[in-house]
Amino acid sequence: MTDQQKAEQLIAEQCAQKLLEQDEAAKSLNITIDTISPGHAGLAMSVTPQMLNGHKTCHGGFIFTLADCAFAVACNSYNKTAVAASCDISFVRPGHDTDRLTATANEIHKAGRNGIYDITVSNQNNETIALFRGKSRIISKTGPLDD
Amino acid sequence: MTDQQKAEQLIAEQCAQKLLEQDEAAKSLNITIDTISPGHAGLAMSVTPQMLNGHKTCHGGFIFTLADCAFAVACNSYNKTAVAASCDISFVRPGHDTDRLTATANEIHKAGRNGIYDITVSNQNNETIALFRGKSRIISKTGPLDD
Amino acid sequence: MTDQQKAEQLIAEQCAQKLLEQDEAAKSLNITIDTISPGHAGLAMSVTPQMLNGHKTCHGGFIFTLADCAFAVACNSYNKTAVAASCDISFVRPGHDTDRLTATANEIHKAGRNGIYDITVSNQNNETIALFRGKSRIISKTGPLDD
Amino acid sequence: MTDQQKAEQLIAEQCAQKLLEQDEAAKSLNITIDTISPGHAGLAMSVTPQMLNGHKTCHGGFIFTLADCAFAVACNSYNKTAVAASCDISFVRPGHDTDRLTATANEIHKAGRNGIYDITVSNQNNETIALFRGKSRIISKTGPLDD
Repeated sequence: MTDQQKAEQLIAEQCAQKLLEQDEAAKSLNITIDTISPGHAGLAMSVTPQMLNGHKTCHGGFIFTLADCAFAVACNSYNKTAVAASCDISFVRPGHDTDRLTATANEIHKAGRNGIYDITVSNQNNETIALFRGKSRIISKTGPLDD
Repeated sequence: MTDQQKAEQLIAEQCAQKLLEQDEAAKSLNITIDTISPGHAGLAMSVTPQMLNGHKTCHGGFIFTLADCAFAVACNSYNKTAVAASCDISFVRPGHDTDRLTATANEIHKAGRNGIYDITVSNQNNETIALFRGKSRIISKTGPLDD
Repeated sequence: MTDQQKAEQLIAEQCAQKLLEQDEAAKSLNITIDTISPGHAGLAMSVTPQMLNGHKTCHGGFIFTLADCAFAVACNSYNKTAVAASCDISFVRPGHDTDRLTATANEIHKAGRNGIYDITVSNQNNETIALFRGKSRIISKTGPLDD
Repeated sequence: MTDQQKAEQLIAEQCAQKLLEQDEAAKSLNITIDTISPGHAGLAMSVTPQMLNGHKTCHGGFIFTLADCAFAVACNSYNKTAVAASCDISFVRPGHDTDRLTATANEIHKAGRNGIYDITVSNQNNETIALFRGKSRIISKTGPLDD
């Protein structure tokens, strides 16, 4: 790792920590950060009884929220405020009570103020639960560390 | 309204009530049903401080959850269990603390086991907050009323 | 119609004509304009043997192209150059040889440089063939009429 | 490679060839197959003056068509007829006259009759032109080789 890379990694880590600290939703769902690097994030959440829908599976809204948090952390990892413009999610397998879900976000395109990120949500058996593609837009030259 | 239409309307109302009763997420967010008819649903939710993200606006996950609930109620209004296959959401305006958000779901296509629903999320000033398109699949000939 | 509305309608008509004239793809597919107004467009195309895929139904690419043209005409109807950022299409019924397909584009959101348009592709029996949602971005203050 | 793998590879190659042979659209656009394996396909197409839109860049419809063909070849590589249910495309860079575009399709999920494929369209400089995510559904136990 060059000094430049180390500096970028530090910024990504600090942005992630700041963002999650300020995110009441993420805190109330006990979402934690597993991995972080520029343009990348891995977040985890455990499914609880409060997250179940009428089919006794995890409500899509919580799976979306976990994926969306990983997306937010990844696209804000450069300390320039970015917001979600649109997101597409496919639910491929249900999440169940006590499942430990991990959302892994990777940047697949970045040009100017626009970015595209792919987020995969998996369970503790490494089975894919949902596939999420998010499009972000940078709305400020300052970011989480400048607040 | 014919007797047939009255019967379908009653089924839609009963399915909606049953679905929401069993939905811990919808209950914890105080989501309420404003309107319901076959293939249609209007649900509402108030933004609370717990729903805010690091930008002090309503977390996309909660806006998604409200829209997803309206989608679920609309696509389950025939008493045949339907689940979300995929959803696309565009965030066009932020939601703020104390905003009263309404998600209106309308069926735009139904053929065999597949349906497509458009959900618009608006605030108390009738400004659009998010546009959601959901694709559903019927997975059972029985529904919420047969549990 | 006020004078202002008449002027906007004229601009929409002229932009549409200019755009289609310059569009080699639209011309080679014999795409025609049925209706046009600010933020709205109705375009038509006949399915020919050259458009069929291995399943003997109209290739999704041509249905997409027709919808995309209607989207382009609608989002360029203000004489400010707009381009497609992303599009989502669902194919709900096949198109067959000799079918006359119509794509109707309606603006459902416009704020600043961003727009969202819904395009429905139907056949001559008014059956829905495809549902398309397009997101546009204005990239210039000048438009088709300023070239 | 095991004998089983060799057999599956052969089926994928034969399905791809059969599919493209029957596809009038692919033939008229001179789309060629670069690589093929089960669940994967790489197809190429050169941008011609006939493919340009009013902005003098490649019409999104042709970029979509190339990506859609790669998607079709990949999801039909098991000799079970699969069709596109829905597709999402993001245009991230324009295509220009004489560009050589390559669409690379990879299967990212397959369960029962449903599949999800990611297709990246790049130009001759390996720059990303478009990102496409397609959802397929198997509609028959027989496939291209059984016609």
